[in-house]
Amino acid sequence: VFHVDWDPGDAEKGGYDHFMMKEMTEQPKAMVDTLAGRLNTDGIRLDDINLDAETMKNINRIHIVACGTAYHAGMVGKFYFEKFARIAVETEAASEYRYKDPILDKKTLLIVVSQSGETADTLAAIRLAKEKGARVLAVTNVVGSSIAREADDVLYTNAGPEIAVASTKAYLTQVGCMLVLAMHLGQLNGEIISEEMKRLGHALLNTPELVQKAMESKEAVKTFAYQHFNINDLFFIGRGLDFYTCLEGSLKLKEISYIHSEAYAAGELKHGPIALIDDGTIVVAVCTQEKVFEKMLSNIKEVKARGAFVLAIVQEAHKGIASEVDEVFVIPNMDDDITPIPTVVYLQLLAYYLAVARGCDVDKPKNLAKSVTVE
Amino acid sequence: VFHVDWDPGDAEKGGYDHFMMKEMTEQPKAMVDTLAGRLNTDGIRLDDINLDAETMKNINRIHIVACGTAYHAGMVGKFYFEKFARIAVETEAASEYRYKDPILDKKTLLIVVSQSGETADTLAAIRLAKEKGARVLAVTNVVGSSIAREADDVLYTNAGPEIAVASTKAYLTQVGCMLVLAMHLGQLNGEIISEEMKRLGHALLNTPELVQKAMESKEAVKTFAYQHFNINDLFFIGRGLDFYTCLEGSLKLKEISYIHSEAYAAGELKHGPIALIDDGTIVVAVCTQEKVFEKMLSNIKEVKARGAFVLAIVQEAHKGIASEVDEVFVIPNMDDDITPIPTVVYLQLLAYYLAVARGCDVDKPKNLAKSVTVE
Repeated sequence: VFHVDWDPGDAEKGGYDHFMMKEMTEQPKAMVDTLAGRLNTDGIRLDDINLDAETMKNINRIHIVACGTAYHAGMVGKFYFEKFARIAVETEAASEYRYKDPILDKKTLLIVVSQSGETADTLAAIRLAKEKGARVLAVTNVVGSSIAREADDVLYTNAGPEIAVASTKAYLTQVGCMLVLAMHLGQLNGEIISEEMKRLGHALLNTPELVQKAMESKEAVKTFAYQHFNINDLFFIGRGLDFYTCLEGSLKLKEISYIHSEAYAAGELKHGPIALIDDGTIVVAVCTQEKVFEKMLSNIKEVKARGAFVLAIVQEAHKGIASEVDEVFVIPNMDDDITPIPTVVYLQLLAYYLAVARGCDVDKPKNLAKSVTVE
Repeated sequence: VFHVDWDPGDAEKGGYDHFMMKEMTEQPKAMVDTLAGRLNTDGIRLDDINLDAETMKNINRIHIVACGTAYHAGMVGKFYFEKFARIAVETEAASEYRYKDPILDKKTLLIVVSQSGETADTLAAIRLAKEKGARVLAVTNVVGSSIAREADDVLYTNAGPEIAVASTKAYLTQVGCMLVLAMHLGQLNGEIISEEMKRLGHALLNTPELVQKAMESKEAVKTFAYQHFNINDLFFIGRGLDFYTCLEGSLKLKEISYIHSEAYAAGELKHGPIALIDDGTIVVAVCTQEKVFEKMLSNIKEVKARGAFVLAIVQEAHKGIASEVDEVFVIPNMDDDITPIPTVVYLQLLAYYLAVARGCDVDKPKNLAKSVTVE
């Protein structure tokens, strides 16, 4: 007879060391499930949403309200809604939004994003908006949650249960839902042309495979993390869509590795934060956007000149950046608009391996709860 | 014969160790000059601005675009414009704004904020907006600057020359101009009632004296700084108007002391960043807003429970917070809407004395230029 140490939690981890790794690995499937039945050759079809073209005629403003990781998905959402549906969007943290007197009426569409569907501040924002006559659309992962019940429409992320405190697959599917919704609204209000729809639809269908490829780079990320885990500070820089990816990467790193990381819009660096860059400071430069690639290159040169150790993330077409930086992660060439989906996976892996290398409890970071149901 | 070491710069410092201290000391006068001739018993009178009630009827959206410190003034501006003129505002960093395709037309008023009037990214935003037919109003400190010349209207901050790289009096007067402009627009579009105008006018007239009182607290701030200068990280938390003050305080600290500080909307803390709070971590909690005072108190208890050393800034009415925190700076009771003006002075002083205690070159921080005229 021998004794087996058995932790019931381990069984559910499916052989992975942590729920976080299990959930990151599930991301390609989560993206498939998010897109399933919603994308077709003609465009977007959202059977779960009752918002129609007639209602959209009366919508002149979108507010996106969320907390933490979901707030970052909301920032990507703002970019997509403004670009593809040409509706002005304000994205705000729920804890700020609910205590101001937002300019809100029947012509406002409030979109809330919450993995758990139970986030207290977000729920309060819904109630405030409904009182003012606004229509509420929720993007959430949990069927039957309070937020799902109180919203007028619900778009489920279909990510499956998320156990790790640091959200990964929920974020990815939230971003996917933002793009799908932006295309849907653009369709309803006629702001998006069919060529654009086809381009985005095609690009979206590739995301599960791109996410899979990103996950397959985990050994490279692990090697980098184990070489550099002994740091106190780290900076992420990016422009446009890359900036939001940086914000999410920085939050992930804070949550589980306790490294003081911060994300900056790269153009803001020289207005102050560059003073913190010193010999050996690690700067992660996310540069997946063609439109601002040259500007990012200038910013990289600025931080290099101050001694920074730069890790760049670029599309294949710009792998030549290797001669300018200390380390590069190359992602396949893809449509610039979907880059937030595969790119954030590298930053999730970076946070994960830095935390593991530092001996942190990845699934249960100190001080944090999975869903914040108190205010 | 003896030799005198004489630095021509010293003469202009008027006896102060640094331009930054000289300029902070000039802040009460700078506020007087900002308000002079613009506030009267009936309301606001802005002779320099041609924007009239007729034009305002066609404005349905304001974009505020700026960089660095001026960007933070623009965030306070958003709060004021939305509250007092009930116009939806988007505040964005110029380096982000110019590379997206902002929703911008003849009905948009673009407000740019720049001390020097030469900030390259901000200038590019003006040109983009004018191409799209938007009207441009500039808030700047330098007469005849490029931004002043290219804007349709200019409101000068009248702060006098600012030499130190870290902006202090320019920020204060930018915030003052934001409130004056919000009142002016509220007057033009009829959204502000005369009682509110009187309340705000009265409160604004008190700001020079309140700023003077804040400057008189410098010994207390200095003592605190000399006790705590040996730190690597510092967090600022606040809600609503206090959050923007935190952002500006954090930038000031980064710029001149090279301490990695970060500002958080207090309600976002428990969605991630609280993981960084450890035994002895200094958290500066700005709590001047009655509406969210109790919420701030909960956030303070959360960080205290994780071992943080908390410095709170409160109005006189809440000085009882002393029993909950480690240190308090008490400001006089005042109208909540003008608190950003005197409160930021404490954070400027904190940055200044921490930098001096750490032996940093306050007027010429490494890596930074006074005005960023390259992109």
